[in-house]
Amino acid sequence: MRKNYDDPIPEPDIDPTLIDPTFARTERRIARLRSALEHRQPDLHLVLENVHDPHNVSAVLRTCDAVGVGTVHLVYTYEKFPRIGRTSSASAYKWTNLVRHESIERCYEALRKQGVRIYATDLTERAVELYDLELATPVAIVFGNEHRGVSEEASRLADGNLRIPMVGLIQSLNISVACAVTLYEAMRQRSVAGRYAEPALPAETIEATLAEWAAK
Amino acid sequence: MRKNYDDPIPEPDIDPTLIDPTFARTERRIARLRSALEHRQPDLHLVLENVHDPHNVSAVLRTCDAVGVGTVHLVYTYEKFPRIGRTSSASAYKWTNLVRHESIERCYEALRKQGVRIYATDLTERAVELYDLELATPVAIVFGNEHRGVSEEASRLADGNLRIPMVGLIQSLNISVACAVTLYEAMRQRSVAGRYAEPALPAETIEATLAEWAAK
Repeated sequence: MRKNYDDPIPEPDIDPTLIDPTFARTERRIARLRSALEHRQPDLHLVLENVHDPHNVSAVLRTCDAVGVGTVHLVYTYEKFPRIGRTSSASAYKWTNLVRHESIERCYEALRKQGVRIYATDLTERAVELYDLELATPVAIVFGNEHRGVSEEASRLADGNLRIPMVGLIQSLNISVACAVTLYEAMRQRSVAGRYAEPALPAETIEATLAEWAAK
Repeated sequence: MRKNYDDPIPEPDIDPTLIDPTFARTERRIARLRSALEHRQPDLHLVLENVHDPHNVSAVLRTCDAVGVGTVHLVYTYEKFPRIGRTSSASAYKWTNLVRHESIERCYEALRKQGVRIYATDLTERAVELYDLELATPVAIVFGNEHRGVSEEASRLADGNLRIPMVGLIQSLNISVACAVTLYEAMRQRSVAGRYAEPALPAETIEATLAEWAAK
């Protein structure tokens, strides 16, 4: 998909000290890269629709890396994917599979071809509470712009809507917080289901990606 | 505790539009305030030790409100609790029980008098994975400064250390993200245990706090 877009996807700003200082040692580095790939969940997808704040996008990509999200789908129809000044070799961007789509419709089409169930984070009546969802099956979670939320189209075309329970007085959570709570619940369910116990990616994909990553 | 400190605790910056627009209608407002109090978890504590970024503190307090954290304990021995320009009637600060302590030792003393088990977020060898902890019992979670993490003292004097599982290449999560993942796991466990089904605060505390809140 990305070949249709002239501008490269910029790297969000990640503090290089976040990376293990021993990371440069080649053997250990390869082992860590391999371990990350072996824990990747190719059927766990995140869709970012016009999320524009660079701090939010950085925090979201760090969480994706931590949980092993397979692919982050970018649908930027109003806002641009945030461009951040300093690039860093330690960027989560490097280790995240980012795919651009020209519209929500195309994005959902691509996901459905892979048998993925799509949940938009929205407060409609049909919204299901996060903890009642089955997240150890192929699933995509859609987060929308900080101010407008997910678009009407993204909500309507989804298979369902998900809401995070809240018992307080404030009506919404920071988007990087909401995203982390959702992805970590997916991780928890997938751990229980043994989905991190064995590599989900095919061996040849792991080797090919490892060669690509090692060269970065 | 707060009377020992001259400077008022400043209000973090919260967008007023986050509050339900019908919030001003008195009856509905009282019902919402009451509902929030009835869901509060007085034995769920958060300790912030020198967390200094205002965005992080704002996001953390929003999460505390959402989950119904009973008390947020502030131990600011190096940094100041962040002061943020604009105050807002919609601030999470208003609805969060903030208590200052002059040291970690005093803070832990006060918590232990209430029979609270204290977990510091730290990557020591004795760290227990978040999902293996029992969080539906009286518990306090300690988060440290963005750069230095929890202090040696805060870690050593705690009853245990907790770590959030990560399977990627980046070694840490944003603090507001880590805090949300932890507090929402507490919420999930407490929901399962029926801890949100009935008010945990005594009826007289609910009425007294309601009167105080309604006047805000």
